[in-house]
Amino acid sequence: MRIKGLLTFLAVCTISFLSYSQSRKVIHIPDIPGFQVLKCDFHTHTVFSDGAVWPTVRVKEAWEEGLDAISITDHIEYRPHSKDIVSDHNRSYEIAEPLAKSLNLILIRGAEITRSMPPGHLNALFIKNANLLERDDVFDALKEARDQGAFILWNHPGWKAQQPDTTLWWNDHSRLLQNDLLHGIEVFNSNEYYPEAIDWAKEKRLTVFSNTDIHPPTGMVYDVKNEHRPLTLVFAKSRTEGGIREALFNRRTIAYFNHTLVGNTRLLEPLFFSSIKIKNYPGKLINRGSKTIEIENISDIEYSLELVQPGVGFDAPASIILEPHRITSIELNGNSEQVAGMNELNVYYKINNMWVSSTENAVITVTFSNN
Amino acid sequence: MRIKGLLTFLAVCTISFLSYSQSRKVIHIPDIPGFQVLKCDFHTHTVFSDGAVWPTVRVKEAWEEGLDAISITDHIEYRPHSKDIVSDHNRSYEIAEPLAKSLNLILIRGAEITRSMPPGHLNALFIKNANLLERDDVFDALKEARDQGAFILWNHPGWKAQQPDTTLWWNDHSRLLQNDLLHGIEVFNSNEYYPEAIDWAKEKRLTVFSNTDIHPPTGMVYDVKNEHRPLTLVFAKSRTEGGIREALFNRRTIAYFNHTLVGNTRLLEPLFFSSIKIKNYPGKLINRGSKTIEIENISDIEYSLELVQPGVGFDAPASIILEPHRITSIELNGNSEQVAGMNELNVYYKINNMWVSSTENAVITVTFSNN
Amino acid sequence: MRIKGLLTFLAVCTISFLSYSQSRKVIHIPDIPGFQVLKCDFHTHTVFSDGAVWPTVRVKEAWEEGLDAISITDHIEYRPHSKDIVSDHNRSYEIAEPLAKSLNLILIRGAEITRSMPPGHLNALFIKNANLLERDDVFDALKEARDQGAFILWNHPGWKAQQPDTTLWWNDHSRLLQNDLLHGIEVFNSNEYYPEAIDWAKEKRLTVFSNTDIHPPTGMVYDVKNEHRPLTLVFAKSRTEGGIREALFNRRTIAYFNHTLVGNTRLLEPLFFSSIKIKNYPGKLINRGSKTIEIENISDIEYSLELVQPGVGFDAPASIILEPHRITSIELNGNSEQVAGMNELNVYYKINNMWVSSTENAVITVTFSNN
Amino acid sequence: MRIKGLLTFLAVCTISFLSYSQSRKVIHIPDIPGFQVLKCDFHTHTVFSDGAVWPTVRVKEAWEEGLDAISITDHIEYRPHSKDIVSDHNRSYEIAEPLAKSLNLILIRGAEITRSMPPGHLNALFIKNANLLERDDVFDALKEARDQGAFILWNHPGWKAQQPDTTLWWNDHSRLLQNDLLHGIEVFNSNEYYPEAIDWAKEKRLTVFSNTDIHPPTGMVYDVKNEHRPLTLVFAKSRTEGGIREALFNRRTIAYFNHTLVGNTRLLEPLFFSSIKIKNYPGKLINRGSKTIEIENISDIEYSLELVQPGVGFDAPASIILEPHRITSIELNGNSEQVAGMNELNVYYKINNMWVSSTENAVITVTFSNN
Repeated sequence: MRIKGLLTFLAVCTISFLSYSQSRKVIHIPDIPGFQVLKCDFHTHTVFSDGAVWPTVRVKEAWEEGLDAISITDHIEYRPHSKDIVSDHNRSYEIAEPLAKSLNLILIRGAEITRSMPPGHLNALFIKNANLLERDDVFDALKEARDQGAFILWNHPGWKAQQPDTTLWWNDHSRLLQNDLLHGIEVFNSNEYYPEAIDWAKEKRLTVFSNTDIHPPTGMVYDVKNEHRPLTLVFAKSRTEGGIREALFNRRTIAYFNHTLVGNTRLLEPLFFSSIKIKNYPGKLINRGSKTIEIENISDIEYSLELVQPGVGFDAPASIILEPHRITSIELNGNSEQVAGMNELNVYYKINNMWVSSTENAVITVTFSNN
Repeated sequence: MRIKGLLTFLAVCTISFLSYSQSRKVIHIPDIPGFQVLKCDFHTHTVFSDGAVWPTVRVKEAWEEGLDAISITDHIEYRPHSKDIVSDHNRSYEIAEPLAKSLNLILIRGAEITRSMPPGHLNALFIKNANLLERDDVFDALKEARDQGAFILWNHPGWKAQQPDTTLWWNDHSRLLQNDLLHGIEVFNSNEYYPEAIDWAKEKRLTVFSNTDIHPPTGMVYDVKNEHRPLTLVFAKSRTEGGIREALFNRRTIAYFNHTLVGNTRLLEPLFFSSIKIKNYPGKLINRGSKTIEIENISDIEYSLELVQPGVGFDAPASIILEPHRITSIELNGNSEQVAGMNELNVYYKINNMWVSSTENAVITVTFSNN
Repeated sequence: MRIKGLLTFLAVCTISFLSYSQSRKVIHIPDIPGFQVLKCDFHTHTVFSDGAVWPTVRVKEAWEEGLDAISITDHIEYRPHSKDIVSDHNRSYEIAEPLAKSLNLILIRGAEITRSMPPGHLNALFIKNANLLERDDVFDALKEARDQGAFILWNHPGWKAQQPDTTLWWNDHSRLLQNDLLHGIEVFNSNEYYPEAIDWAKEKRLTVFSNTDIHPPTGMVYDVKNEHRPLTLVFAKSRTEGGIREALFNRRTIAYFNHTLVGNTRLLEPLFFSSIKIKNYPGKLINRGSKTIEIENISDIEYSLELVQPGVGFDAPASIILEPHRITSIELNGNSEQVAGMNELNVYYKINNMWVSSTENAVITVTFSNN
Repeated sequence: MRIKGLLTFLAVCTISFLSYSQSRKVIHIPDIPGFQVLKCDFHTHTVFSDGAVWPTVRVKEAWEEGLDAISITDHIEYRPHSKDIVSDHNRSYEIAEPLAKSLNLILIRGAEITRSMPPGHLNALFIKNANLLERDDVFDALKEARDQGAFILWNHPGWKAQQPDTTLWWNDHSRLLQNDLLHGIEVFNSNEYYPEAIDWAKEKRLTVFSNTDIHPPTGMVYDVKNEHRPLTLVFAKSRTEGGIREALFNRRTIAYFNHTLVGNTRLLEPLFFSSIKIKNYPGKLINRGSKTIEIENISDIEYSLELVQPGVGFDAPASIILEPHRITSIELNGNSEQVAGMNELNVYYKINNMWVSSTENAVITVTFSNN
């Protein structure tokens, strides 16, 4: 419907309504050398299982929120609306696919294989026919998925409904791993966090994920205008389904939840450095002198840095917060004669919001020229 | 799912997630003497016609947004998802009703009778069996609705898809009116505004409405956290379905869109006065003297006032904006000896965001004691 | 200056500019039985000591932010702008006072007596002549203040610049206390927090404070539109300077910083209960049944509750967040036959954001009728 | 002062306080080919005339708001605080300059020559000694300024206090112009707009300005966190005082107020094109076909476009809003066979928020390749 006569009303803002359906947020997370950073959510539901929205809503909301790719992963075994909704397991993908195509959003065919623990719930991504996954034995279902080329991940491994007291790795998961039936694991799901999963991912060479497992509209759970839903950042060679698949099988992901990033140093470090621009005003730092450095954070991520080792010959701030889209000005202060002779000043910070294991943060070295 | 270990993460805010499903906005629009002000939306859709959400979403989002009542008004004649969804016209109500009851939200059984113009689209509210409205002749359908006790309103009377060049009242609508088959009319629908409808409502004694006609989740169209969806304010004797029905048939509504209010002076005026608290500091206004008045706006509505007639013996601000939940301080300045002899100071303002016809604003008199 | 032609511009919002100078925020913290809750800041600076604003700015910004009272407490002994500014210690009060009077803001004459530790910095409030406080001996200065009727508080007792490693109570402070020269202490100053001060206040019967010690404009340090500056809540019998003085000497204050409140249970408990409105829907809780309670938080304070003792015969939420100006709906679930026989249901929560000592929270009992 | 123990408090956010003094907003307005876009305010006051802040506040707030340059332009003839403040006309610059230097903000020495109309108030920028401007005759004062190398602009030419009924160009201004004593004019001042000034600037070759004329702290008048103060955009060859001076004398400025831009097409057009990134998905537009174009607005400016001439062989949206930092997706629809033969599709839009005279908008041609 269109506007009529509305502009004659004081304080009636029509702009947001007119353009809402056409405008898309930009998530500012810069690419790193060699890879595009794709913003993805590999775990969502619709009315075709126990979700509360039509499949096209999943595509539209993802596009508006600035995502590159999603998978609709309706449960194979749990369809509480089946009295009203009569269709097969491929239907939600088929309904969503034309809209995804027209919006240039990558829609990955998926399904959730849903069992009690062990092995719990697993998502199969890049499948070809979800109907064939309806099997009595969970191993048969997973083998069928793998035979279709699926990437398989263990969802919410520490979900209290299935693991009330502890978060365990079961023998069944080892068996899945040995049989090439397990490739990834959720570190974040919805609002839950499973630190054990980071260590398992490292040890067993699994890909880390941060997914929503969303059932209602995303806007009812997340502040989609100002913040972002849990996202799996995929470092892909191309913005295509194939590019995502290759990246997942090669473990090039970061799990991203609020301002927290979990993954491997080889990705976290370049992501940090691609997020900032350093401006070093000319001038040599000398003893009892000071030198100002401006650091612009061009990403949406707030970085929290903590000094882990004093610089040689100078003091640097013990902690630095790099707020998104702002310039932070820091001051280095010379504390010995030695500093005047150095052409480079190295500072060592751990990044409090970047985790490489359940207990360790990423540590980075920043080098400023001293001239 | 529950939280685990999350609090060890810096800058990870878990509060909003934990409480999202239990917490409800309060729309601050105060009651007026004799009536409660109920916030209602009488026009919404679900997957059971051409909407995009499961019926429970309509209830949950309305509850979270602070509404008192909604009606799900799925189309009788237009069901594009019927290949996948096989249920009768009563089903969306039946699915939503238990949740509404547990949340104490009033859910009114309704349906949209959907024809080309004339007579266009009409909502039947307070029906008992939607299936019986599936009739070839639109008059038969409306008579059936009325026989079930329905209140009937004409939806989006100026919708461009049906009235591209003009907004007309057709003979069919006169016929509906004469046969007690038309009781209300939408002044606002979604983002559209039909000023002609205000005048028709006045002339033909119809009840005014402001509804969303929402198809996607409301959060994809409206800023539900900071603003409100289009609302019909119902001035009811009780917060019950019966209370709403009585109020609708007695034309006690205001159509409320952004900060604009459309209706009858007998409701607009008390609503304005219940929205403000005046603090008049002691002291007599004399010639060349000044007197400060504080006006607190305790409602969510921003009022824009414009002086329509100079005060006798004093100057008052030519325009005043009363921002929501703030105190506005205004100054009266004596300009003749006469003012010192007056015990009351009257100012006459029109309210730019309150409309009583397509061209006229509500005008109010504010009286300050002068002592 | 006034607007001209501006409204012809699309998307040019003039309203906020026009009304900025006249409109005042409302801090929603309800009164408690017997006392008004006044929002105060007893520690501010201007260009007449080492502050950066003209005295009228302190009044205007306080009025706009919704405060009831402030004190300008320029340093007696530290006046770095004295080369440019030549006036005595009473001048900042004299400049600010007429504006305060016209805006009905209470301006309390004060000064900061500024020494190294011990005894550090002390504010004297309700003085009559600041010039007489310029004395060589700090005890002489404080006695002069007391003889003028001053209330004296110890500022930022744990300030790192003066107490780098520990926060100590010195012999000098005991001496001040014994000589009626110390009546209050800051628990919050600017962005600092001194938990030791809560225990000292309790033990030595001092009044607690939360002040800004603001030097630049408040808007450069605090988000004055959406949040509040550190505030001392004063529970006064009247909104007058005398009312504040009586309350301070009788220790009726709460130190309020972000959403944290520090003080005595006899004030914290009624403040909590005046902040909420409970709606208990009729119906008896029975074993295996549930009962819904709605709690509306009508204050600006977010309360975080944690269950400290299970209810008898029923379960209540382990934690509850009461977001400001929202309704939180909680569910009680019967877990024994006993509950059906109870006419009242008691729940015991500690309030995480209310502190009665450096380590203890306020604990409250909420009673719901069970009918 | 530093933090202590604060992190033990729930919901106490310390981050913004810690970093507030070091972090600076980025105003996203991209450079254009050949020129840097500097964000400047050439009209501000301090306590040394009738302003309300210490000179360092002007520097600090400008730096925090992301500006590149300001001028402090205290009145020569109006110094209401002279009873308390005893210093010469150069003092406010001298106090502010060291801080400006350390923050790398360009501070331009200036003063406001303040007379009744005609010629009203004029700012002299790039002067060397403000004391010499204190002259009985306004022409003498302006000549002195010019002899010091000043750029001179007419402030708030339509200020109601001086021109209550009309906005006139006086003979005196012609005389100033003829004597090289007038080089620029304010189109925006504070919240005022003078459309006549655009036409005078065009006709008489004056440089356009948008300045604040700020007296209180900027945060008390503008929403400095989310929006921007009125700004003069300077298109400079270098980010230096000399670069700004050269640009001003060569009329390379745009007056920028909220989302409105006023200036010359030769600057407005490249600014628009540097603000957007167009993504044209491959595919030829044919009759009855459609083609999607994504336009990313990388600037802070919201652009409002209106179609001024239909495309040849296709339809384009009648109006487009390009929201800041979002991608707007538009659809072109083929409406004749002709379109398939075109390799380029031209659309002609006027930009509603870009003005080249008091009545005319900038008009731009956007060309999409059709392959």
